[in-house]
Amino acid sequence: MPTTRLEAFSDGVLAIIITIMVLELKVPHGEDLSVLTPLLPVFINYVLSFVYIGIYWNNHHHMMHAVKRISGGVLWANLHLLFWLSLLPFVTGWMGENHFARLPTAFYGGVLLMAAIAYRILVVTIIREEGPDSLLAKAVGRDFKGSLSTAVYIVAIVLCFVFKQWAAQAIYGLVALVWLVPDRRIERILPPAR
Amino acid sequence: MPTTRLEAFSDGVLAIIITIMVLELKVPHGEDLSVLTPLLPVFINYVLSFVYIGIYWNNHHHMMHAVKRISGGVLWANLHLLFWLSLLPFVTGWMGENHFARLPTAFYGGVLLMAAIAYRILVVTIIREEGPDSLLAKAVGRDFKGSLSTAVYIVAIVLCFVFKQWAAQAIYGLVALVWLVPDRRIERILPPAR
Amino acid sequence: MPTTRLEAFSDGVLAIIITIMVLELKVPHGEDLSVLTPLLPVFINYVLSFVYIGIYWNNHHHMMHAVKRISGGVLWANLHLLFWLSLLPFVTGWMGENHFARLPTAFYGGVLLMAAIAYRILVVTIIREEGPDSLLAKAVGRDFKGSLSTAVYIVAIVLCFVFKQWAAQAIYGLVALVWLVPDRRIERILPPAR
Amino acid sequence: MPTTRLEAFSDGVLAIIITIMVLELKVPHGEDLSVLTPLLPVFINYVLSFVYIGIYWNNHHHMMHAVKRISGGVLWANLHLLFWLSLLPFVTGWMGENHFARLPTAFYGGVLLMAAIAYRILVVTIIREEGPDSLLAKAVGRDFKGSLSTAVYIVAIVLCFVFKQWAAQAIYGLVALVWLVPDRRIERILPPAR
Repeated sequence: MPTTRLEAFSDGVLAIIITIMVLELKVPHGEDLSVLTPLLPVFINYVLSFVYIGIYWNNHHHMMHAVKRISGGVLWANLHLLFWLSLLPFVTGWMGENHFARLPTAFYGGVLLMAAIAYRILVVTIIREEGPDSLLAKAVGRDFKGSLSTAVYIVAIVLCFVFKQWAAQAIYGLVALVWLVPDRRIERILPPAR
Repeated sequence: MPTTRLEAFSDGVLAIIITIMVLELKVPHGEDLSVLTPLLPVFINYVLSFVYIGIYWNNHHHMMHAVKRISGGVLWANLHLLFWLSLLPFVTGWMGENHFARLPTAFYGGVLLMAAIAYRILVVTIIREEGPDSLLAKAVGRDFKGSLSTAVYIVAIVLCFVFKQWAAQAIYGLVALVWLVPDRRIERILPPAR
Repeated sequence: MPTTRLEAFSDGVLAIIITIMVLELKVPHGEDLSVLTPLLPVFINYVLSFVYIGIYWNNHHHMMHAVKRISGGVLWANLHLLFWLSLLPFVTGWMGENHFARLPTAFYGGVLLMAAIAYRILVVTIIREEGPDSLLAKAVGRDFKGSLSTAVYIVAIVLCFVFKQWAAQAIYGLVALVWLVPDRRIERILPPAR
Repeated sequence: MPTTRLEAFSDGVLAIIITIMVLELKVPHGEDLSVLTPLLPVFINYVLSFVYIGIYWNNHHHMMHAVKRISGGVLWANLHLLFWLSLLPFVTGWMGENHFARLPTAFYGGVLLMAAIAYRILVVTIIREEGPDSLLAKAVGRDFKGSLSTAVYIVAIVLCFVFKQWAAQAIYGLVALVWLVPDRRIERILPPAR
């Protein structure tokens, strides 16, 4: 099976997720600046989640570029990833509406954690099929950055309960910044595709 | 007519259906765990419907891979399938909000039943055009699994009224599990596509 | 410019329009049959609008199949058509919520009328570019069916005010039935595309 | 990397943005003409924003047609543009609900301004990669029209505070009219693509 339709479906789902998050920015009643103040945390949160979906889309895009064929297992590993990402609008809205309270912050980290694990499962499923000598296997390698993110999300969730939730929020922002640099590992190894 | 645009449109509709279901998970007011409790049945239901849409997308993907050309009849059979699937968010929300009450559970089964029948009509319409010797006709064959699902949905709906609705819910979950294994019938017969 | 991206964008918009209409079917509170009764007109209306969007998608699909290249004018004629179709969820909801009252019924016809005119403008714009000897010009010809629909919508809107609105509703249903037969004119003339 | 998936994702996001704006046209309760009156400013605003998204889609379409390959930087510059455009439904709704009050009008202009800047960043990022002798660099040139729009949005925002907001609204409408003429600069230079 070629990858085109898997990419098209993932693009569709990610495009919808990234766009319906903006629906949590409810149009306020009133025309002065004060009606926007309660929306500020929701907005900041929207930016963070927008960047995260953007990161997943970029990395998905890069990875699929290196994949030649997919099986039923890959289709489900991909749907599993989309499932966790589809919960991002919910936790984004919950965290934003409660001004970054403890529990919503921890749940937000939980969804990020599950999405990171799902992405790893997708990578492993694809590599198992492409073979250990495939371009993708070489490009991704031990995936230090991915494993680090996973570990760091767990730390952030724990910090929500044993310390302060702002530490977790700072971590979410930092991880996003680190990933904003697209996954050069694949670009480096792959021959230029035309 | 090539199948590309039919696939693109179906991907779009399925991507939207799978994503707007998450909008039924209304962002709660309050920041403690208790506000999530009433959302639990809605969430469980969301998972079930997500899996069902995933199953339809996977099978649709596999089937269309074996189809060479489509006619106006196929376009409408496909829209008919999408129509019933588009009602899934509604019955998912209704069943979740009423904590799996009898009537919503039966209606959920009704939508699954109609979608299964619509899928069968789509398969038959395509096979009539591709011919009885086509790859698809051989791959799908008598469609034992599809007929069984249809029969089982009817049983589930009846059970809602003559017995208990949890039996129907267990059946919906079991059918989903059985179908999670993608449709190997087509993969087995088709030559590997590159 | 090739037509692929215009088709992809139109597919996306039509897929979203057809799916967000189901959001007007608000999940009711309560678990017995009586809570569904007020939704019945909304549901009937949803079916009608689903069929109309399906008709436009099918005809758009058939027509674009016969088009080789597009210009900026075609892009805007296409967006103009999508604009009127994007108002269909609004008038569908308004007509359904008011149990097919006079004014909403007339407005529904007004949106259908404007969409039919916009479709005609799109056809004319494309033919002007493809030339009078193009396949499309031959296939569409004088477009008797399109002109008839336009005239009939005007009759329906007038009937809302001088007679009863159920006559208009019957007309909307009849026109949909007539169009359900896809546009064979193009299929007849075009050589089979593989 | 080829441009196909970037185009598909952008098409998806723009299709959703253009369609969810219509959700701000809330279905009114009541069946006479008076219930539509308060919706009129929201509707006018919807038309304006629909045209703006259409303009961005058209120009994006034209530009990408001239691009051969994209890098990670381009992916992010494109997401940055989509981010600002995704805020258009919010400011459209806010401006419409408050009957074109001063602050919402200024914010609307602010989103248009940021989107124009983001588009310019995208163009510059692509040209840096394609080289100064590329078709795109020649076609876009000094981008007089783009720079003028940016300057004019700033003037409009200032006018909201030092004069009257209707002047800003008139400017938004005028700029849209000027851009409705698609970007012939690229069509002129590029050889006809078939």
